[in-house]
This record gives sequence, structure tokens and C-alpha cells, in this order.
Amino acid sequence: MNILLTRELKTCFEQLSIDKTCRVVVLTGAGKAFTSGIDVKYLSTVALGELSQIDDSARKALHLRRMIKRTQSCLRAVDQCEKPAIAAIHGHCLGAGVDLSVCCDIRYSSCDTTFSIKEVDMSLAADVGTLQILAKSITNHSLFRELVFTARTFDTNEAQQIGLLSRVFDTREAVLHAAINLASAIARKSPVATLGSKIQLHYARDHSSDDNFNFVSTWNSGMLLLKIL
Amino acid sequence: MNILLTRELKTCFEQLSIDKTCRVVVLTGAGKAFTSGIDVKYLSTVALGELSQIDDSARKALHLRRMIKRTQSCLRAVDQCEKPAIAAIHGHCLGAGVDLSVCCDIRYSSCDTTFSIKEVDMSLAADVGTLQILAKSITNHSLFRELVFTARTFDTNEAQQIGLLSRVFDTREAVLHAAINLASAIARKSPVATLGSKIQLHYARDHSSDDNFNFVSTWNSGMLLLKIL
Amino acid sequence: MNILLTRELKTCFEQLSIDKTCRVVVLTGAGKAFTSGIDVKYLSTVALGELSQIDDSARKALHLRRMIKRTQSCLRAVDQCEKPAIAAIHGHCLGAGVDLSVCCDIRYSSCDTTFSIKEVDMSLAADVGTLQILAKSITNHSLFRELVFTARTFDTNEAQQIGLLSRVFDTREAVLHAAINLASAIARKSPVATLGSKIQLHYARDHSSDDNFNFVSTWNSGMLLLKIL
Amino acid sequence: MNILLTRELKTCFEQLSIDKTCRVVVLTGAGKAFTSGIDVKYLSTVALGELSQIDDSARKALHLRRMIKRTQSCLRAVDQCEKPAIAAIHGHCLGAGVDLSVCCDIRYSSCDTTFSIKEVDMSLAADVGTLQILAKSITNHSLFRELVFTARTFDTNEAQQIGLLSRVFDTREAVLHAAINLASAIARKSPVATLGSKIQLHYARDHSSDDNFNFVSTWNSGMLLLKIL
Amino acid sequence: MNILLTRELKTCFEQLSIDKTCRVVVLTGAGKAFTSGIDVKYLSTVALGELSQIDDSARKALHLRRMIKRTQSCLRAVDQCEKPAIAAIHGHCLGAGVDLSVCCDIRYSSCDTTFSIKEVDMSLAADVGTLQILAKSITNHSLFRELVFTARTFDTNEAQQIGLLSRVFDTREAVLHAAINLASAIARKSPVATLGSKIQLHYARDHSSDDNFNFVSTWNSGMLLLKIL
Amino acid sequence: MNILLTRELKTCFEQLSIDKTCRVVVLTGAGKAFTSGIDVKYLSTVALGELSQIDDSARKALHLRRMIKRTQSCLRAVDQCEKPAIAAIHGHCLGAGVDLSVCCDIRYSSCDTTFSIKEVDMSLAADVGTLQILAKSITNHSLFRELVFTARTFDTNEAQQIGLLSRVFDTREAVLHAAINLASAIARKSPVATLGSKIQLHYARDHSSDDNFNFVSTWNSGMLLLKIL
Repeated sequence: MNILLTRELKTCFEQLSIDKTCRVVVLTGAGKAFTSGIDVKYLSTVALGELSQIDDSARKALHLRRMIKRTQSCLRAVDQCEKPAIAAIHGHCLGAGVDLSVCCDIRYSSCDTTFSIKEVDMSLAADVGTLQILAKSITNHSLFRELVFTARTFDTNEAQQIGLLSRVFDTREAVLHAAINLASAIARKSPVATLGSKIQLHYARDHSSDDNFNFVSTWNSGMLLLKIL
Repeated sequence: MNILLTRELKTCFEQLSIDKTCRVVVLTGAGKAFTSGIDVKYLSTVALGELSQIDDSARKALHLRRMIKRTQSCLRAVDQCEKPAIAAIHGHCLGAGVDLSVCCDIRYSSCDTTFSIKEVDMSLAADVGTLQILAKSITNHSLFRELVFTARTFDTNEAQQIGLLSRVFDTREAVLHAAINLASAIARKSPVATLGSKIQLHYARDHSSDDNFNFVSTWNSGMLLLKIL
Repeated sequence: MNILLTRELKTCFEQLSIDKTCRVVVLTGAGKAFTSGIDVKYLSTVALGELSQIDDSARKALHLRRMIKRTQSCLRAVDQCEKPAIAAIHGHCLGAGVDLSVCCDIRYSSCDTTFSIKEVDMSLAADVGTLQILAKSITNHSLFRELVFTARTFDTNEAQQIGLLSRVFDTREAVLHAAINLASAIARKSPVATLGSKIQLHYARDHSSDDNFNFVSTWNSGMLLLKIL
Repeated sequence: MNILLTRELKTCFEQLSIDKTCRVVVLTGAGKAFTSGIDVKYLSTVALGELSQIDDSARKALHLRRMIKRTQSCLRAVDQCEKPAIAAIHGHCLGAGVDLSVCCDIRYSSCDTTFSIKEVDMSLAADVGTLQILAKSITNHSLFRELVFTARTFDTNEAQQIGLLSRVFDTREAVLHAAINLASAIARKSPVATLGSKIQLHYARDHSSDDNFNFVSTWNSGMLLLKIL
Repeated sequence: MNILLTRELKTCFEQLSIDKTCRVVVLTGAGKAFTSGIDVKYLSTVALGELSQIDDSARKALHLRRMIKRTQSCLRAVDQCEKPAIAAIHGHCLGAGVDLSVCCDIRYSSCDTTFSIKEVDMSLAADVGTLQILAKSITNHSLFRELVFTARTFDTNEAQQIGLLSRVFDTREAVLHAAINLASAIARKSPVATLGSKIQLHYARDHSSDDNFNFVSTWNSGMLLLKIL
Repeated sequence: MNILLTRELKTCFEQLSIDKTCRVVVLTGAGKAFTSGIDVKYLSTVALGELSQIDDSARKALHLRRMIKRTQSCLRAVDQCEKPAIAAIHGHCLGAGVDLSVCCDIRYSSCDTTFSIKEVDMSLAADVGTLQILAKSITNHSLFRELVFTARTFDTNEAQQIGLLSRVFDTREAVLHAAINLASAIARKSPVATLGSKIQLHYARDHSSDDNFNFVSTWNSGMLLLKIL
């Protein structure tokens, strides 16, 4: 993944979000892996290039802050897509690959996938999803912190232990097959009900129970009535 | 479950909440199932009946919003009961049945129970508990979203995978027996300590760590002193 | 644990937090147990002694509130230490021992450890961590509430079921050995990246996804630039 | 005001909230004053009567907590009424009278009204509105805290300085006349737009800007479409 | 203001936000008024046009929701611009004009300006700033609600009473002159300190005191050090 | 003000907070001014001294962050003191002086005082109170932002316009006399009711209305019962 790919991701998911002919998205890696993460060299070349044109160090920091926010907005386009997104994972899922999978709603993986929350190895705190979204829904915080602090690789067993995956399959083909089957099942449901559910789930991630009940009553009163009328 | 039952649930749990002779509540289904969910036909008959008497479509929406809030307040009476509530589940636990069980503190089930978050099949986003309360404490968000988006049935294995159940038993009788034993164990403890703990746990669901520490110090300073005095 | 020990804990972790030669902390019990919890007799003697010197009952309550906050600040010093803390648990982990372990980032245990959230047996709601921090990251709320309401003992199997432990070992020696190995692995990483990650994780515990993305972009823009410059 | 009146207030405002023939509410005092506040003697007689029937002091505290919440729910029925409420104030507006006026949307007063946040004189922290709602929208916190800590009386000049009143009139009749004129003006507007605005304003009191924008887009998409259809 | 203008506003303020040669923005109306608000006819023509191409009423609602969010994002580009924005107001400031001025940091007005929160007259709740941002910082909520519920015009006296304006001037020229002078004064300050202050002020609007202190310590530690180094 | 003074402030207010013989605090300046703010030279000498002993720039940033948090904790000791604090202001109230006064509950000033939010002139965003606490309760945000962005001086008229002061007096002696009279009036009230009110007011600054109602019912149920028993 480099800056070009993340921008394309954004454009692509923003279009799918409003495309009437699309009901579900399956995201997979074309080659040997889901993704080995950000192409750090490329990123730092771009970053260093842009930064070197700025004299003042405080302005450099502001520019860097905008660059981080720009990358965040690319991956968040996946998170905020109005259609459910399923990640079909195989091979490697490293660094920003974990962030990208976390921005999807559902994750299936083949059993041989290697995972790693690599950011500490790059001397930084993960800033495009893993510590921002996944940290809010993780299953075993003790194990999760171990993986974050050591940046060591882990397999699908540990990935399931932290609640990252719903299912694990023997082969890459089986993953993709199951993901497409699941996508078909979702696509047969009312897209308004699916979207309403996704919006509720995102809302619940960041709001109190009282807020959740209030929000859904407002949403459903409009949507249900339109259906009845 | 129809509107009469949900109203009775509310009255019943509001009374149990302040009844001095009650220390714990066990909730179970009398027949073949915990519950097959809202009687949709009955509900829509009532809803359509009430709505048909209103001319203006915006006022229809406001009326529908009040109806949703009314049903929410019925199930939330279970959630907000000052006594711990244990759901003893068997047979079926579908749609609003999942919401109802989620409003209890503890869930035991027999191994043959069929679960389903059915609301998407009724073209709506679940609005009385599952996406509002359970979504905040779920164990495997990937699997949970799969179940929400497809409305498919699932068994106790998957119910445990998302952290819904503390224990699974062979028969309905065993579930009820264990639930009553657990209720007895809880009933032997100080009811003020049990209530204090339940209030903390509900509070923690929706507040920050700092808020939790501050709230419990206020609660305990009053309660402990009264005990000491 | 008594009031002297909790004060020492505070002093100790506040020093380790800023000590340049320290990168990770391993916390274990010297004797037969991690800890059997607060020495209730000692605590109540101190508490009753201090309270008996106050005439007015409302002022007694305010004094008690300050005492609770003082104890909270001792255990929170572990939670807020800028270095990752690993709890190596064996034997018993009871009452405030659970709170203490919860204030650590990572928990390893030997297989024979007995756990208990004992506070209900002391007629109070747990107020120094278990219901304030752990409740926000628990895996199976149904089982957790069962343990809180009954104050019964539980073993490492149930401790894993609620997501308390990342790993369980055969012997106390194995626990300590693994904890120290993990500490070494963490110590080899960039301490600034480790700290950044820990601060993000704590922040994410109490903030929304939007807040998390915004906060990390501010943090990383400063830290990364300083590294680049 | 005594417990009977506050209960009547609740019943009355809950009915007005859903009464199709009501569009605005004007609330005024029939005699020499808006209200001199809670009838403390009556309240404490009821409270002491109820409390004396409970043996255990911790249960007494829980009962008292429920009584406070019951009184709060009475005044909050005014705050949560779906129709705008205008308080027409004259003579005295003391203690719970301030809380009551604060639960209205708009406050008009005659120039001779005496105000007081009296609760500190009754040895308690105001608990039914002034410190809970008004404190979040006050204009001069320095003066407000002075009034709260001293419980001294203040006139309409200081009431305007803290932003409590929109207008002050010479006589009680002028207040009522203006309040009714204002009510007529509001009643001529679309009731759905008025309600939507009131719900937004209440929502904004307790939520972030981002939340406000998100909530109103959900509300308006339903309401506007229903109007267009 | 029509949809073209709001889009231009967005593009313009997003560019100014990162333009190194821009330090402050002054926003004024070229003709007889600051702005008379959204061109409702134009907007509804566009809206109705787009909506008429959609068959399903629920999808119509989703489309309308996206349209509202799109308009919000245009006005929020002013609010989120990294440079301070000063509104120089004269003539009329109606409907979306109030929203637009509210998205600026500072408001100056000539004494003859007519204001109106007109949305209730268009049968909708204001949804692009007034009830979302201004409602959180208003000075006299009683008067503000009066203005919102009646949609009546008000003058600069009442505009000052609700804290909308910092200063009022005799003529349009004087407003612009003073706004430019103020802009010059701000432009002479360190742009990094100005931006830091604006970001703090926006952050404080939506966060707790604790959060504010924590955020500014993170921001300043990076920015100050870069200055020192 | 230098680091020694701020530390003394902390020690002093922490002692007053629990001192049984103290009921209110009046804070004034001994010489010609309330305070001219932080002694920037002293501060930067200390800061630069401490920073120069650290090699790594990221560690420098962490150290600087701790220094800022340390200074914040000094001024917040005033804000969090359990007794009401009255600032009696005269002469100058500049920079950190504004922050300090903001940490008091009530502010009285002589009419000749010169104020300034000076931090932008020192190339930083104010970080010890003005943008963190005052920003949440300010009366005229337009004027406030003008003062923050320009760092210009302002007089008591503008200070009143932003709601900073409750009263202005002719001379320094009159300020002190009135502050002491006010302190006496507060000291005659029940200290438990005063503290309860202060804690509510602080709590309301950062919480929703629902949270406020819930918190005060918990606080009052303990405190009132203790009084009744």
C-alpha cells in the first residue's frame, strides 16, 4: 500500500457508498497476500519530500498532521462506506493491512495468514485504525497489548482470541468463496435495513445506551413510516 | 410477545425493582421457547390502526417515534430493574427475544436453543436492545455484524463466541435449576452491595474510567458510612 | 495489601513512570500468592480510627470519600504509569488483587491461581478498578456479572473466558520466566513508540473513534517530526 | 409546591406533550407569586414518614434516592414536554420555583420579582434543575456561583445578568399579556418545525457539534421527505 | 446562497486553510446584505429534481440525508478552516446567513442589520450551524429559543443580547474597516499560536475540562519543543 | 508567578481543601497587581535547563509534556479545592493571571484592572485554564476569540461582556472589602451544602443533564440521610 493506493481506496469506497447497484463489498488481495502494509519507503520519500520544502519546523509539524489526517480519511472511507464490507484475508496482513481489515465490517481469513501490528517497529503509534477502532471492540486486552507492544507476528488462533475474525478457512479459495456467499446472503436483504443496522452499529461504538435508543427511534420513525406510507 | 406483554413486563419489573421481598429475578419462557419475538402482525395491526387515525404524515412520524420509545421503555424496565435478572433460555430466542435477554444481567441457555437477530428480515434496524446495549459489550464484532446483516439463525456455540451466554446446559430443566441456584447464591449476599455493583456496571457501560472512579467514590462514601454508623 | 503498601505502590510506580533506566515493569507476589487483596481489618481500623475523630456525620462521609479517592489514586498510579506493566500472577488473586492486576497492561498466570471479585462479600461495590476499568473491556458480560454478584472463586479457565489473561502457564516459575521474556522483548522496542501506543490505548478506552483519530494525529505529528528532524 | 403539585405537573405536562390541540404552554402562578418553592415542611413530613418505616439505614438511603429521582421526573416532564413552555413569572420565584422556570423554554418576568436559589439554606445542593440544566447555559458563572453559595435573593437585573430572562415587564398583567402574545406567534408556526427545533436545542445542550450535525440530518431527512411526498 | 455558492465556499475555505500566504479571512457580502440565506427555490428545485429520479421512498430519504450532510460539509469548511475567519455583516443576515456567520470565529456588524433564524418559517429545524454550533455558546437561552421558535426578525441589540456580535458599527464601511484592522492585528501574531488557539477553542466546545487539559499538553509539547530546538 | 509560586499554590490549596477550620478562600495580589502572569524568563530558564540534560528529542518532548501537566496540576488545585475561592483582582491580571482567576469560583475586580490573554504573544496556545475552563462558560465567544487571537489588553467593561466578573468596584480596598463580606456570607452557610453545590457545578461543566440529575441524586441521598439520621 502506498499513498496512491490509499487515495484510490478512498475514491473507490466513496463511489460504492452511493452506487445504487452495489449492496455489499468484498475486499481481498490480488497476489500472495491481503496486504503487507504501507510501503514505508514510498511514504517516507513523499513525506520527506513535502516536508523538505517547508522551512519552519512548527509548520512542518502542521503539514505532517495534515498528511496523517489525509491518510486517516482514506482508510476511514472504508469504515464509513454505507455498504457492509467483508475482508477476505490470506497470506499476510501486516501493519496498515490490519488497520484496513479493521475498517471492514467482517473479517474471514485462511488459516495460514500471518498478522502483525507492526507500527512499534517503525517507531510510531498505529494511527489509521488499529488503536482507534479495533481497540474499542477487542476481546482480550491483555493479549492485544502484548501484540501492540512487541509488534510480533501472530497467527489466526491468536487473531481469533482477540475477536478479530469470525471464521477461518483452509485455503484462500475457501475464504473468497465463503465471503462471496456471505455477500450474496446480505445482498438479498433490504438494503435500507442493512444500512440502518450498520449506522446503528457505528453509532453504538461511540455513544451511550441512552443515546443509542434515542437515535434509533428517530431513524426508524422516518424509515418505517416511509415503508408503511 | 405483543404490546400487552411488553407493558406487563414493564409493570412487573418496576414493581420487582422496589419490592423489598425480592432480591433476584429469573426470567424464563413457559412453553416451548424463551420467546419467538414480537408478534409482528399484532404490533403492525395496532400501529397501523393508530397511525390511520392521523392525517398529516409528519405527525404520523412523530406518533411512530413515540410508539418506538414506548416499547423501548418496556424492555428498558428490565435493564433498569434494581435487582439482578437472570434469563433462563431454551427452545427459541428470536428477534425481540434476543433484545429481552440482553436486558437481563446474566444468560443461561439449553444447548438446543435457536437464536436469531431477525430485525433485518422485517426490513428494520433492531431498536429495543440488541444494537443499543449488546453492541457495546460484544466479544466478536466481526461475527456479530455477520449475524445482524444476515438475520440467520445461530446456535449456542456462536452465541458463546459473541459472549452472549455464561453457561450452556443439556436440558431446559438443567438451565432452570442452575439459574435458580445462581439466584439463591446472589440472594444470600448483601442486597445493597449487589445493587451498588449493578449500578456501577450499568454506569461503566456508558462512562469513562475517570467518571467511574468518581461515581463509585460518591456512592460508596454514603453507603459504607451508613453501614459503619 | 494495606494502606502502607498501596502508598508504596503509588510512590514506586510514579518513580518508574519517569525513570529513564526503566522500560517495562513486571509485578509479582513474593510469597505464596500474587495477593489476597486488601487487609480489610487493617483498613477498617485506620478508617474507623480516622472517622471516630470526626463529630458530624456528613463530614464523616466527606472524609470517607477522600479516603476512597486516596486509595484509588494509589492503584491508578499503576494504570497511569508511562511504562507497560506486566502482572505475573500465581496462587491467589483476590479482591483488590484483581483490581491491581487490572491496572496492569498484561496479565500472565499460573494454572493453579484462584481468583475472586470479593467486594460483595464485604458488603460493598468494588471501587478501585474491577468495576471501573475491567468492566469496560470485559469479554463475557454475562459471566462477569455472575462473578461480581456472587463473589465466588473462579479459576484460570473462567478468567480466560472473561478475557482477563493472555496466557496461562504450568508453574509460577514459568509465569515469571515468560513475563520477563516478554518484558525483554518490549524493552528492545522504541520506548517512545511503546509509550505512544500505551497512551493511545488508554485514550481509546474512554473516547470515541473520531476523538482517537484526532488525538493520535496530534501526538504523532510532534513525535514523528522530532524523529525526522 | 408540594409532592401532590409536582405529580400533577408531571401528569399535566405529559398530557400536553401529546395533546394534538395544544401547541404552546404558558405557565404562571395564580396568586401573589410564580411560586415560593417546595413546601419543605410537607415534603419532609412525607419523606420522614416513608423513611421511618424502613429499618436498615442503607435501604433508607436507597429509598431517599428513589424519592429524589421521582421529584426530578416530575420537573423534567416540563423540560421534556414536546411543546414549547413559557414561564410568566411575578412576585416570588424561590427555590424549586427557579428549577421549575428553568425547565421551561422561555422566561418572562415582571420587574418586581424576587428570585432566590434557596437550597443551600436548606443544607442541600439544588437537585431538580438549577444546578443540572441552568448551570449548563448560564451567562455569568462568577455571579451564578455567588447566588448559589449565598442563597441570597436577587432581582430581575441580576436575573438578566445571568441570562435567565428574555424580557422584563412593568406589571404582572403585562408579563402574561406578552407571554400569551408570544405563545400565539409560536402557535402559528408549523408544529413539526417547532418540535424539531426544540428537540435539536435539547440535544445540543448535551452533545458535541459533530453529534448535533449528524442527529439533525437524520431527523430532517425523515421529516422533510414526508412533507415533500 | 445556492448550492453552487456553498460548494464554492467549501473549495475556497479548504484552500485558504492550507494556503501559506493567508493568515486571516474576512468574509463579507458584496451587495446590499451579508446574505439573505439559502435560495430556497433553487435548492428545492435541485432537491426535487434529484429526488424525483428515485423510486423507493426509503432511498429518497437516504438521498435527502446525503444532501443535507453535503450542505453541512460546505458550511463546516468555514468552521474548520485553520485560519481565523471574521464575518463583516451588514444589511441582512437571514436563515443560512446566520449559520454562515456562526461558522466564523468573530462577528462584527453595522447597526442597521436585520437578523432572522428563518428555518421554522420554512417548516424545518435549522440544520447547518445555528442549532448545532451557536446553541452551544449562546448567552441568553430564553431569548434564543424565542427567536428560534418565532423566526421573527431581530436587530443588533438582541443579537448582542444573545452574544452573537463582539462589536456594532455605524456604517457598513466602518464594519469592514474594523474587520480588516482586526485581521491585520491577528496576522501579526505567530500563525502557529493562532492556529493552536483556534484548535483548542474548537476542541473545548465539545470536550470536558480534563480532556482539554490533556489535549493542549500534547499539542504544546510538540509545538513548543520544535520552537525551542 | 514562577514555578516556585505555582507549587506553593498547589500545596496551599490542597491543605485548605481539607482544613476543617477553612470555609472559603479569598485570593488577592499583595502588591500593585493581582498578577502579571508567569515569569516567562524564569520558566524558560528552568525548562531549558531541564531539557538540555536530555539527548533524544522525542524524550525532550515527553519531558516538556510532563512539565506542562505539572503546571496544570498546580493551577487545577485551585479549581479543585473543596472550598469556594474568590479572586479579588486589581491592577493587572495578565496571562497566567487570567488562568488563575478562572480557576477561582468567583471574580471581583477594581475598575482600573488591565486584563490580557497574553499567550499568543509568547507563541503558544494558553494551556493552564483560559482555553480549557473559561472557554466552556464564556458569554460572548466572538469577543473572546478576538481577545485570544490578538492578545490585546482589555478593561473591566470587556471583562464583564465576556462574563468574567460578577462585580466591579472603584478601588482595590472596596474589592477586598466586598470579597471578604461575600466570604463571610458563604461561611455562614452549611459547608456540606456549599461543597455539594460546588461539586455539582464542576460536574455540570463537563457532563450531560441526564448525568447531572443522576449524580446529584446519588450525592444527596447519602448526605441528606446522614443529616436526617
